[in-house]
Order: sequence, then structure tokens, then C-alpha cells
Amino acid sequence: MSAALRLNELTASAIVRAIAAGECSCEDVVRACLDRIAEREPLVRAWEFIDPDLALARARALDRGARRGPLFGVPFGAKDIIDTADMPTAYGTPIHAGHRPAKDAACIALSRKAGALLLGKTVTTEFANIEPGKTRNPHDMRRTPGGSSSGSAAAVADCMVPIALGTQTTGSVTRPSSYCGVFGYRPTYGDLRMAGVMEAAGSFDTLGISARSIEDVALYRDVLAGVEPQPVPSAVAAPRIGFCRPYYWSRLATSTHALLEDAATRLARAGAQVEEMTLPEEFAALEQAHKLVSGYEMARNLTWELEHHADRISDRLRYGRLKDGLACSVETYAEMRRLCELLRERLQAVMAPYDVLIAPAGEEAPIGMDPVPHPWMYMAWTIGYVPTLTLPLFKGPGGMPVGMQVLAERYGDRKLFAVARWIYEVLN
Amino acid sequence: MSAALRLNELTASAIVRAIAAGECSCEDVVRACLDRIAEREPLVRAWEFIDPDLALARARALDRGARRGPLFGVPFGAKDIIDTADMPTAYGTPIHAGHRPAKDAACIALSRKAGALLLGKTVTTEFANIEPGKTRNPHDMRRTPGGSSSGSAAAVADCMVPIALGTQTTGSVTRPSSYCGVFGYRPTYGDLRMAGVMEAAGSFDTLGISARSIEDVALYRDVLAGVEPQPVPSAVAAPRIGFCRPYYWSRLATSTHALLEDAATRLARAGAQVEEMTLPEEFAALEQAHKLVSGYEMARNLTWELEHHADRISDRLRYGRLKDGLACSVETYAEMRRLCELLRERLQAVMAPYDVLIAPAGEEAPIGMDPVPHPWMYMAWTIGYVPTLTLPLFKGPGGMPVGMQVLAERYGDRKLFAVARWIYEVLN
Repeated sequence: MSAALRLNELTASAIVRAIAAGECSCEDVVRACLDRIAEREPLVRAWEFIDPDLALARARALDRGARRGPLFGVPFGAKDIIDTADMPTAYGTPIHAGHRPAKDAACIALSRKAGALLLGKTVTTEFANIEPGKTRNPHDMRRTPGGSSSGSAAAVADCMVPIALGTQTTGSVTRPSSYCGVFGYRPTYGDLRMAGVMEAAGSFDTLGISARSIEDVALYRDVLAGVEPQPVPSAVAAPRIGFCRPYYWSRLATSTHALLEDAATRLARAGAQVEEMTLPEEFAALEQAHKLVSGYEMARNLTWELEHHADRISDRLRYGRLKDGLACSVETYAEMRRLCELLRERLQAVMAPYDVLIAPAGEEAPIGMDPVPHPWMYMAWTIGYVPTLTLPLFKGPGGMPVGMQVLAERYGDRKLFAVARWIYEVLN
Repeated sequence: MSAALRLNELTASAIVRAIAAGECSCEDVVRACLDRIAEREPLVRAWEFIDPDLALARARALDRGARRGPLFGVPFGAKDIIDTADMPTAYGTPIHAGHRPAKDAACIALSRKAGALLLGKTVTTEFANIEPGKTRNPHDMRRTPGGSSSGSAAAVADCMVPIALGTQTTGSVTRPSSYCGVFGYRPTYGDLRMAGVMEAAGSFDTLGISARSIEDVALYRDVLAGVEPQPVPSAVAAPRIGFCRPYYWSRLATSTHALLEDAATRLARAGAQVEEMTLPEEFAALEQAHKLVSGYEMARNLTWELEHHADRISDRLRYGRLKDGLACSVETYAEMRRLCELLRERLQAVMAPYDVLIAPAGEEAPIGMDPVPHPWMYMAWTIGYVPTLTLPLFKGPGGMPVGMQVLAERYGDRKLFAVARWIYEVLN
């Protein structure tokens, strides 16, 4: 444990080690996080629900207990579309304000089983969609933190918690992690259980993690998978890296081009086999496919709300995505799902020669509170079901964080962690 | 409307027509169903929850209201792992007895939006798994109705409701529909939303329908898809039918062989292009794949229950599937999911020459209450993500119903209905 860091600034892995070494208690860690929140929450607004007394009581109970686990004593936040038995879960809508689920979602129960301590619920956009929550970017309060997992990324970036759970249907973990300057992980589709998590669009939904180290991402991923955590393996000596210029490359700022091009050059110099490759123009069709499939599914998932509380759904959602989704026929929906499958196969083929791809993770967070700009940046990887880890590597022209995605083939999550760590060590 | 039938014996489509024609009210239909339930429920035990006063009040409200829909006035049942805002949902376990969800699952809300009337919650096995509920086979009380959607199939078979919702992770709609002698439909995986439905094993879970006509299945499927219902299209003149002898053919009773062989002969005589085909032995590997993937996922999904109420989980589930699932590594899980993908592609190739396959839907319901015998009969189709419709065509040696599955390629659900209707009309 570094004496220079306050407890709330430690990574999850460092907290586990510090508590195991007797250097601090769970209560000390929770107090440090709560102090940080008391100081910064009026500005950052990352939390939808937090109860300091409950958190301290839980910390003391952990300190008293005999049971230990791989995340013992680590405070975490969870996006407020994830059910919790002891805290309200409101899905980012006044319709469900104060709702109390009967049980924890699988990911919450697995976190707690591992000894982690749920500090509170983090702000989500409305139904994990486009209407912003109250959270601001901790690096610049005029800017969006990105969404939809806004509070999770902001809370981790601001050292209120070391790790937080989000979800992703388009770019809802990658984007805010890039905007807020933290690591953001979306697993291989289907790997981590969604029981007790609001379905936005089941064809694309996954969990996600925001964290301040790759070690923490890997540790928390294994906890969420319900397996014994394994250390991040060593990377191969000269990883084969595909420097991906996606079909939307020309839509990106030249400053973003320059950051990625420089990174590719430095990785090659450090011994990686870096090859430029493209995500061909045919992939542009996935923008329509993602829009229709996700809109179709969301519109049906929110039938109860549309039937009973339509006037409390934002106009933007109700007359935008939901209306479009309701208008989509089941034939078009099936056709678009077939197209997604085809593009998934193509992506697999395109990625096959490489250990990982590197690709943009986001532009610099824009001024304003639109939480979901540039959704097209994330769709290929989401539809492709591949794991992605965003590395907080760069600064944009406005001095804001800009991330870079590292992507591996489906089921290659552990390999992703290994190569991403090598990349991070080279570039940081 | 046939004068010979009582209202509770009508199909959903016939009820819609009768109400539209002014021949009866919603209240009349609900009363007929409730009368049937009052008479038979002490024997059949299909219902986990039913409130006759609530049902009648809803029926009168529908009769008074101006709004009509494609299932207007049709009573339905829903498996008790599907969330309902106005009725408890207990997931087949005493752990959640009396639990009141805050909102309807998407499928319930879509049914109600279409004018259907939820009569009550039907019995499920424990967590839609192997521990039986209280339901008995309405054709022979000594025999299982099959599971896990036991109450839904039994209630439809016994004319307590015309349609009911179930779910399927292995054979949980196909099996009880075959055992109870009703139509049983499992859609293309992913087509119908699972929001608000307990996740058993997300890689395989789908909704399902038990009904007493193909017209009803097709109508209810479109309602659940959230689209304008379309009539069942006409079948092609001489459908190409693959008569499938799966790798497990030799495990089946010779009486089941004879029923299917006779059906194939009669279909050929009626003009179908019937070709014998096999599901090759390599598919046997899916039994292990299904067991490991579903066990892995269930064990994680039930973390909260295992942490807080382990002693109220049946020994059979806790020390069987959940223990095995917890012991499965994430590497093996990924390997088995890859194998499922491979077999899914193989199945698609094997099915390509045919409009549909015909295959066994179950042996005759055995004596005893084991709700899930012969799980291997259903795994290929479940893992293959293909739609299946079970037709109540045969009688087994004990005089019990025996069904036959008709299967089409993924997304071919409407074509499935068309060809299955042709087959049913030829054989029945």
C-alpha cells in the first residue's frame, strides 16, 4: 500500500491486499470513500442512492465476520438498472422511483459473495437509454460523463469507489469509461449473467465494469463469472495487433486519428507486430441493424410502462426509439438479426489474424449533457459480441481523457487482459 | 361458435370471434373457465395462484371498456416464473412465496395490451428445474404432466384456459404439451422478449405457448412479438419434410418408432416429399454441452438464493445441477458454448434441404411424478435455436397422448405454422 494514496484512491486489488495485511479495516476504506463522496458528490452527482449508515454497518459486519473472499472489503457501485434487495432500484425513471426488488441480481449477489460491499446505486440514463441523468464529468463539470452507465464511470474516475458495475447495449460502458478516463470492460456477450438486470435489448445487453486498473477488471470479471480469480496471464512477446481504421474513421476528429496513429507507431517500436487493417464499408449496414433490433426489443420490453405510465416517459424516448421500434415488423426484425449474425461472422474473420485489435473508444467528451453521442463508434463490437477493454491513455485537445479500445475474439477475455496490459505498459 | 362446445372448451380464436359477434361476453367466458377450474382443480392442480373475484372484475371491466384487441376477452394462464404486477410470483420455491413484482413481464403486458385476461399463475417445477410441482396429468392422475411448464400444459389440456404461457430451457414446453395432448410452441431463440421472466439459463431460455389449435399459437405468437397478427399462411403444395431419426432414436420405445414411421408414410401418401434423414451421432456431444452450460448459468443465477436460503432449495437441485454448475470452470463453459455454436451451424446445414423436420416430441407420459424425463430428446432443437411446434397427434400404448414435433429453420416460425397445419390436417 502506497502511503501517498488515500484509501479511496487505492485500486480494488490494493484494498484487498491492505486489509489482508492488517493495514486497514473495511470500515476505514468505506469511511474514506464516503468522505470523498461527501466532498465531491454535490458537484459530480454520480449516485442515485447512497446510505452512509448502512454502508458503515455493513463494513463493520464484514470486519467482524470470519468469511473472506477475493474482493473482501472492496466498496463498489452498481448502475441503477441492477436489482438490489437492500437498496431501491429505479431504472432511471420516476415511474419506478423507490422500487424495492425482492432479491439481488446475480451480479450483485456474486459480488457480495466475494466480500465486496455495495456502497450505493449509480446514476443511469432513463432506462439505460438516451435521456441523461444528473451526473457530470468529474474532469469538467460542463461536459457529459457519457452514458448510459454515467454514474459508474464518474464515481470510479473520481475515486469514490474503485470499481463499479455498468451495462452496455451500444457503447454504454466503453463511452463513459473513455470520457471519464477509467478502464472500461465489456465481456464476451453471454458470459456474465443478466438475471436481475433490466433488459434493454437482450440481443446486445451485457454487463460491464469500470475500474482504475486492468488487474481490477480481471479480478472482478472472474468474481462475476463465479469462478476462482486467476491472475492476468503474461502477454505473448510480440503481440499481433491490428490497428483498426473502421469504416467510420473519416467521421472522427483528426486529433483522435493522431492519438491512435501515434499509439500504433509506439507499439510497433516496442516490438508488437502492428498491421493496419480496416473494418470494411459493408459494416456500415450494422448501424441500421443495431437501431432496428435494439429499438424493436426496447419497445416491447417497456410495454408495461407504455400502457400505464406513457406520460412519464421522456418524449425523446417515447416518440423516438420506442415509436420507431414499435413500427418495425417482425420480418424486418428477423432480417436485421440475420444481418447481425452475418456481420458477427465477418468480424470474426477480419479479427482472426490478430491477437487483438486497437480502435477508437470515443472522442473527447463534448461540452453539454448529451450522454450518448457517436453511438456508431461502438456498434460493430457490440454486435460482434467480442470483449473490449478501454484503456485511459490519451488527452484530447480540450485536456479531457480519451480512451483506446483493445478488442479480442469472442471468449478471449483473459487473453485480452494480458495483451491490453502489455499495451498499457508500453503506452502509458 | 359451435353450440356443442362450452365456452371454456373454445379456442382463443373462437372466443375472440364469439365475443366480437355478440354471442357472449368476456364475463361469460371467464365464468365458464372458472367453473371448469372449480370442478377439476382439486384433481389436476394446475394453478399456483388464482383469484376468481379478481378475474371476474377484470372481465367486467373489459366488457365495459371501449378498447378491443386481437385477444380480446381471452383468458390465459402464465407459468409462475413470469412476473405479474397484480398476482404473486413465486418461481416454484417457498423462498419467494408471496412475492409481488412491481410490474408485469413484457409478455404479460403484451398479452393484456391485446385484450387477453390473465386468469392466474400456473404451476412450475422449482425454479423451472427438476423438482416437481403439484400438478398431475389430466388424462391420468397417476402420471406426470411433464415439466417444467406443467400447469400451463395441464390447464390448457383440461379446458381451464385456451392458451397459456410457459418457458423452455431444455424441453419444458414441448414435453408437457406432448404429455398432456396440446399444441406446444417454442419460438426461434431470441424472438420473444424475456424481460420480467426468471432467467434459468439465458443461453437457452425462451418463452413458449401451450394451446389447443395452431391458429391460436400463431395468433398468440404475433401478440407476444408485439406486431399486428397475421393469419397462418397456406403451406406449399408438396412440402419437403425431413423425417428425422435423431442419434437417440434407438433409446425410444418401438411404439414411438411405429407412430412416427406411420405418420411419415401417410404424409408421403398425401403428397409431401418425405425423406428419411438422421441427426448424426456427433450431435450426442450436445448432451454434455447442454448440461454444463445450463448448469453453469443456473448456479450463478441462483447465487442470492444459495447465499441466503440454501436450506430451502431442494437437495436434488442444490446437490445436483447447482453443485455441478458451480464446479464448471469458465474455460469449460466457453468451450461448451463454442460447441453449441458449432452444432447450431451443423443443424442448420442438416435442415437446409427441407421445409420442416418431423421428430419425436416425447414418449408417453410415464407413471410417477418425475416432471423431466428424457431431457436429451429436446436438446438438439433447443441448442439449435430453431422453432418447434408439437402436434397432439398420437396415443401411446397406455392410451396417453403422444405428440410429434415439427421443426423449421431459425426465423421460419410463420412457415412452420403453415406446414404444421398441413401436416396436422393430413394426419388428424
